[in-house]
Amino acid sequence: MPDAPERGFPPAEFAARTGRAQALMAEAGLAGLLLTTEAEIRYFSGFHTLFWQSPTRPWFLFVPAEGKPVAVIPEIGAALMRRGWIEDIRSWSAPAPADDGISLLVDLLSPLAARGARIGILKGHETHLRMPLGDYEALLAALPGLKLADCTGLIRRLRMVKSAAEIAKIAHVCAIGSRAFARLPEIAREGQPLEDLFRAFRIAALGEGADDVPYLVGGADRGGYHDVISPPSRRPLRAGDILMLDAGATWDGYFCDFDRNFAIGRADDPSRRAHEVLWRATEAGIAAARPGATCRELFQAMRRVTAGMDPGGGDVGRFGHGLGMQLTEWPSLADFDGTVLEEGMVLTLEPSLCYGDGRIMVHEEDIVVRAGGAELLTVRAAPELERIG
Amino acid sequence: MPDAPERGFPPAEFAARTGRAQALMAEAGLAGLLLTTEAEIRYFSGFHTLFWQSPTRPWFLFVPAEGKPVAVIPEIGAALMRRGWIEDIRSWSAPAPADDGISLLVDLLSPLAARGARIGILKGHETHLRMPLGDYEALLAALPGLKLADCTGLIRRLRMVKSAAEIAKIAHVCAIGSRAFARLPEIAREGQPLEDLFRAFRIAALGEGADDVPYLVGGADRGGYHDVISPPSRRPLRAGDILMLDAGATWDGYFCDFDRNFAIGRADDPSRRAHEVLWRATEAGIAAARPGATCRELFQAMRRVTAGMDPGGGDVGRFGHGLGMQLTEWPSLADFDGTVLEEGMVLTLEPSLCYGDGRIMVHEEDIVVRAGGAELLTVRAAPELERIG
Repeated sequence: MPDAPERGFPPAEFAARTGRAQALMAEAGLAGLLLTTEAEIRYFSGFHTLFWQSPTRPWFLFVPAEGKPVAVIPEIGAALMRRGWIEDIRSWSAPAPADDGISLLVDLLSPLAARGARIGILKGHETHLRMPLGDYEALLAALPGLKLADCTGLIRRLRMVKSAAEIAKIAHVCAIGSRAFARLPEIAREGQPLEDLFRAFRIAALGEGADDVPYLVGGADRGGYHDVISPPSRRPLRAGDILMLDAGATWDGYFCDFDRNFAIGRADDPSRRAHEVLWRATEAGIAAARPGATCRELFQAMRRVTAGMDPGGGDVGRFGHGLGMQLTEWPSLADFDGTVLEEGMVLTLEPSLCYGDGRIMVHEEDIVVRAGGAELLTVRAAPELERIG
Repeated sequence: MPDAPERGFPPAEFAARTGRAQALMAEAGLAGLLLTTEAEIRYFSGFHTLFWQSPTRPWFLFVPAEGKPVAVIPEIGAALMRRGWIEDIRSWSAPAPADDGISLLVDLLSPLAARGARIGILKGHETHLRMPLGDYEALLAALPGLKLADCTGLIRRLRMVKSAAEIAKIAHVCAIGSRAFARLPEIAREGQPLEDLFRAFRIAALGEGADDVPYLVGGADRGGYHDVISPPSRRPLRAGDILMLDAGATWDGYFCDFDRNFAIGRADDPSRRAHEVLWRATEAGIAAARPGATCRELFQAMRRVTAGMDPGGGDVGRFGHGLGMQLTEWPSLADFDGTVLEEGMVLTLEPSLCYGDGRIMVHEEDIVVRAGGAELLTVRAAPELERIG
């Protein structure tokens, strides 16, 4: 197994991220950013824990116009936060439904509210507010002078371009996922319930070095599957099935996200053709993914290929997306997204098509945009639909 | 391995949940509930997918005053939703940043807004709004007559009491977790990096039948660990370490959540005593967990025992919580929570204490409240701190 990168990041990385945010804040006239979501808090602080799965406690990070971010967090996380680069850590004994960090936030923000400062919060596409809505309303009521502005564009711009250390982590987990998929012919067999195959795949990915496989969906059905987000059934794999597994494994908090299609025993002609079309669409995406191209152009390059078999387009809504701390991130490879590709963006190329009687096929690879074009992070699928058994 | 329960629920279970909600809505004068979060949408619709890990698309379920819920969801999920009991499924091709379901929601809710109806949304403790805040603001602006009221109390009351089928799933995954912990002496060893032990534990739990182990935290340090929410380090286990693993495994979308403490090679006296005190505190919790008792009383019963070793109390903020579709759910075993225990509530008993030089110990079991008192779902830990190696 290849050596893993270092876990975590040096303080310089967080300082650079914060500095870039502060430069953009100055341009946008923002006196700070108030963040409530896992990926954003981790981005600026390095605070990394699965404890976010508990919905009970809110967590806050404030990025000021100058200096290091300030953490306003439950006491249970203070020891872990102190191990990072953040110095100003204000904590309370949570949960405390009557005041879950709100008075600490009011203390922190009231000088800014008093001078009518503008604070950025996330309001835009692919974001949400991770605190009770009632607490948010109470916070606004307690800070009447405070002006809140949507900072989605600013955060999006920062997070879309990955650092070398981030790319190394994503490349590592993509390699782990590729090795796990390479073992599929040895772990999948006719007669095996899909649920058992999912479990065996997770064990294979852990064995190859994944920290976890939080996302694993797929389908299998005779002559093609019908949806792409289902949990596995107990239905056994049968000869003639087309099987798809879509895996989001993690390593040190970074995801891979790609899928593979397999024919159990034999493949019908439409499924073989669908795979070949999707493979060529992905090739077109790889060729088009150069700095300066737009996400729309990348989408259209893939769409031109799939249109030959599926003029209507599928139900997935886009042909790929950003990848990093989240399974799916900005941008979208879609007609609506004019984002210009830059060096260091990590993307999935995920063309899909509908065929036959309501069947769908999805194919996905992960790439990083380099100066000279796309570099594959996943081990490229074969053009022909792979046969198992 | 014991037989697993059936996956999913019969339509009658969703009809009963909806009927109970509608009875409470009538009492509260609510014309509907607008839900955006995974657990609530799954509770009323059965819609179960890991796709929620993608933050890109919002999902909506509207529970009307009469009749079945209405799903307003991205097209990518429509096929899976159609396999359940919901009939009225309205979908759009998402992501669509310019209109991600908002006009469909406006169509659905404008007749209610026109007559000034009150709609419940989740605003309270342990909840959040899972849609872009900007879209929420746009929805309110488009429906000026609509009155929104916090429905946290209503949802909390429903979800806190589990059905027999829900309890069977939680019991199943608690048994899986117990078998995985029983294998710890065979998979943990001195010299093993904690990261590798975490991976081995996940593989053991999958081997015992878990669908996944989304939550796994813990610590190990000489004479006791210092925080309880960290990811594992590469530090090797050493003789004299106290090791804690806290595992949230899932089966069919339901969690177990409990921990075990181990001494590597030998245990120091304070750690041995801490474990024995926590074990007795848990016994006191088990004895106190009867219908009619309050969460506060349950907390105090455990607190009286831990106070002997730690008069100040720890940093965790409570001594247990509800358990089900989420790793942590209402209620809280804490001084602030006066919830009266009812038959069918599933709880974790999780006393903790601080000792020595900033060390912490947590012990946790899962129970269901029955007419006659607590029934353990986990295989009870031994009173003495277990030694490995």
